[in-house]
Amino acid sequence: MTVAEIAEWLKGELVGDGTREITRVAKIEEAGTSDLTFLANPRYLPYVKRTGASAILVARTFDIASASAPSTLAFIKVDDPYLAFLHVLKRLTPSIDPFARGIHSTAVISPTATLGDHVSIGAYAVIGDGARIGDNTRIAEACVIGSMAEIGSECTLYPHVTVYHQCRLGNRVTIHAGTVIGSDGFGFAPKMDGTYEKIPQLGIVVIEDDVEIGSNCSIDRATIGETLIKKGVKLDNLVQVAHNVVIGENTVIAAQTGLSGSTKIGKNVMVAGQVGFAGHLEVADRSVIMAQSGVPSSITEPGKTWFGYPVRERGRAFRIEAVIRSLPELARDLASLKQRLEEILKKL
Amino acid sequence: MTVAEIAEWLKGELVGDGTREITRVAKIEEAGTSDLTFLANPRYLPYVKRTGASAILVARTFDIASASAPSTLAFIKVDDPYLAFLHVLKRLTPSIDPFARGIHSTAVISPTATLGDHVSIGAYAVIGDGARIGDNTRIAEACVIGSMAEIGSECTLYPHVTVYHQCRLGNRVTIHAGTVIGSDGFGFAPKMDGTYEKIPQLGIVVIEDDVEIGSNCSIDRATIGETLIKKGVKLDNLVQVAHNVVIGENTVIAAQTGLSGSTKIGKNVMVAGQVGFAGHLEVADRSVIMAQSGVPSSITEPGKTWFGYPVRERGRAFRIEAVIRSLPELARDLASLKQRLEEILKKL
Amino acid sequence: MTVAEIAEWLKGELVGDGTREITRVAKIEEAGTSDLTFLANPRYLPYVKRTGASAILVARTFDIASASAPSTLAFIKVDDPYLAFLHVLKRLTPSIDPFARGIHSTAVISPTATLGDHVSIGAYAVIGDGARIGDNTRIAEACVIGSMAEIGSECTLYPHVTVYHQCRLGNRVTIHAGTVIGSDGFGFAPKMDGTYEKIPQLGIVVIEDDVEIGSNCSIDRATIGETLIKKGVKLDNLVQVAHNVVIGENTVIAAQTGLSGSTKIGKNVMVAGQVGFAGHLEVADRSVIMAQSGVPSSITEPGKTWFGYPVRERGRAFRIEAVIRSLPELARDLASLKQRLEEILKKL
Repeated sequence: MTVAEIAEWLKGELVGDGTREITRVAKIEEAGTSDLTFLANPRYLPYVKRTGASAILVARTFDIASASAPSTLAFIKVDDPYLAFLHVLKRLTPSIDPFARGIHSTAVISPTATLGDHVSIGAYAVIGDGARIGDNTRIAEACVIGSMAEIGSECTLYPHVTVYHQCRLGNRVTIHAGTVIGSDGFGFAPKMDGTYEKIPQLGIVVIEDDVEIGSNCSIDRATIGETLIKKGVKLDNLVQVAHNVVIGENTVIAAQTGLSGSTKIGKNVMVAGQVGFAGHLEVADRSVIMAQSGVPSSITEPGKTWFGYPVRERGRAFRIEAVIRSLPELARDLASLKQRLEEILKKL
Repeated sequence: MTVAEIAEWLKGELVGDGTREITRVAKIEEAGTSDLTFLANPRYLPYVKRTGASAILVARTFDIASASAPSTLAFIKVDDPYLAFLHVLKRLTPSIDPFARGIHSTAVISPTATLGDHVSIGAYAVIGDGARIGDNTRIAEACVIGSMAEIGSECTLYPHVTVYHQCRLGNRVTIHAGTVIGSDGFGFAPKMDGTYEKIPQLGIVVIEDDVEIGSNCSIDRATIGETLIKKGVKLDNLVQVAHNVVIGENTVIAAQTGLSGSTKIGKNVMVAGQVGFAGHLEVADRSVIMAQSGVPSSITEPGKTWFGYPVRERGRAFRIEAVIRSLPELARDLASLKQRLEEILKKL
Repeated sequence: MTVAEIAEWLKGELVGDGTREITRVAKIEEAGTSDLTFLANPRYLPYVKRTGASAILVARTFDIASASAPSTLAFIKVDDPYLAFLHVLKRLTPSIDPFARGIHSTAVISPTATLGDHVSIGAYAVIGDGARIGDNTRIAEACVIGSMAEIGSECTLYPHVTVYHQCRLGNRVTIHAGTVIGSDGFGFAPKMDGTYEKIPQLGIVVIEDDVEIGSNCSIDRATIGETLIKKGVKLDNLVQVAHNVVIGENTVIAAQTGLSGSTKIGKNVMVAGQVGFAGHLEVADRSVIMAQSGVPSSITEPGKTWFGYPVRERGRAFRIEAVIRSLPELARDLASLKQRLEEILKKL
């Protein structure tokens, strides 16, 4: 593609020579001839002067005149240079489609299942009684979709995904290999003799549109009602979501984090890896929870950052951590104070 | 079912009008006409006066006369109102059986495998040489049961479960999707050149009766002998059980907890989520381990509650935690004391 | 096998009676007639005098004369008695090969895939377009090998392993059940409206020779380039490896540990269970990281042991931990000091 073609495809504004051919994308400090680069972080502004790139993506508000760029550098002004860069990256990188087209002859599809148009189903996948699969959805090899499960349009399920009976996925949902949707919630009532009676897990899992879930996650069905993962949520690998949990829109949760039963996470929350949430609590919108933290009770104030085991607001957690770091010296100081006080008392 | 039919089915004692039809179960604060509710926790006693339910499950010892309940409310006295409630809940909730009946035509079953009566085996399941499956056991789609493995009666294996060769499951064992039983223990002997020699993992996993294991767990086979999960144990999702671990009867372990090699957990222990146990230690019966704790050494006194990293007895852990929470102020106090002492010394 | 045959097979030096038949291996304190035992740890030297074993494996440098062993005990001198013991253990223990020979008739193998000699492929395994499988490699039931993936010689893949498209495994790689190689890295760019744009994950996973990976692990493909697991690495179960991570040669990582994006772990590092590493950091060669630690930044000095959340060098971490353990007393001391100081001030 030429610089002009890229500018047009991105609906950007071209300033400079649009005729050159772009064959690669590259970081601004590494880019050379025929490369497209981008400027998102102002820290990289000094590189604009000396980049060897043929073209650069910049923000609409970028002041080209004062950038002292090489005359050979073409500018494409766009709304979000980094996102535009990702789009071009994806377009220029040769990649293969891992999904075979159509329905593999070995797929076992119940006669009572309903398939939309242009559905792909891989070898040895199983689609249960009464299941519904939306248009353009791709289900990879060896997936098992339970009875009465519903999967929307344009979804992507990688190999070995299990969707238990009656669970429902929206549109454009992506699930990576080995993830389990709808296993029983962990509920057992203690009996007098020390054994346990299983609490039936009669609810389902509902996953809304545009959710992506990593590999080898476990998302349990509700005891009654729904475990609910709302629009735009992104879960990393090996995440545990217990029964009746609700995860709000556009919340992202990193690997190996666990959410206990009936906990409600707000919208646009960011959770780092290996965090644990106790059950039956609420986390306010836009909260940020740092890695390995433990959240024992509700977080009611939105938009704050939290850290620690148990979590505290970040500033406080860091002040505590600073004291912990020097506890041996603090203990020594205390001992020496004590001794000096004894000496004073003797003198008095 | 009428109230009287429910009372009879539960072997309970009916006090009041048994003719009304029950169509739903509900919490006491939400129940209305045609609903059955229950009273287990005395905190909810005040609701008995004003509930709209048609019937309520109460303990055998419940004093109906002094409850001032509406005359329309029928009582069913049972041994355990909550468990009875669960039984009725399960009976009244329409649910589908996710397991197909019989042996699917695509199941690959070794001619040397032995199947009991009324076994169900799903599409694309594989049963290895010499494996034995007990009566009424249901094995879902795409499970792989290794050579010489033994699975008891009335077991339930959800899709994508792997049981490695020679491992043995008792009766009424439930295993959720993606769980692996019998992968190699993690044992490698260092060699002089910095590489490792694999220590052969020649043992097996034995899972006793009435065990339930969640989804995507890993239970390793023993180096020699058995990794042993005793009767009535319940494991949540993503739990790691290393080689030669023993888990005692009726112990429950929540999600993402890990048990290192050769550790022995006692009976009726309760372990919360994301706990880690070091190897070669013993945990006494009826211990309770709170979430995200780390257990570095044996717990010898039974029936105590433990918390922290490393764990300490709960009261102690909470006292320590209370000081940690105010460490910045403690450090400031210490600094001010030091200064005042300096001033005193100058004066003297 | 006779003692002499074992000595010859191990290329060891026999001292004593080589005619006796060995039928079992056993620990030195438990061994009896017809048993072979070993001495690796000098702590067990006193047992040599009184062992009932028929033969013992000792180091080349072992001084037989001064051991006062029973005259019936034969010695086999070898380079590494423990490793030799493992070899004999493996040879004498009856074990079954869980892998069926040859290509199962139900395996779906793309006509464009390339298979080496003596490859075994289990029932319902799927081998994608252009995939290459090396000589003597065994792929168990229900594995899914993606398009253009490459698997070397003498590899062992247990059931339900997923290898995504284009990922590459070296020779003698072992992967346990349910592990996923090559799922998408967790990368999403925030958009102005609070939703996220997926960052395409265009790279692959490369696993070098002699790597063993446990069950239910998730190894993500790189955003661009490679997630790289070098020669001889051993990963336990449920380990999370994010995009663009590099793990150095002969590093071992225990269960449920997670490595965030672009982190580089050195050679011969030992990582215990449930450890978390932040992203974009480096860990020096031969570091040891204790269980449940959190590593927030690079470790630059090689060969040290680290502990805590966040990690500190072990000696320091233990000194801090010693103070934490007695914080309630420290706080009490401080309060009492404060009071005494007040009293002194009053007196002055």
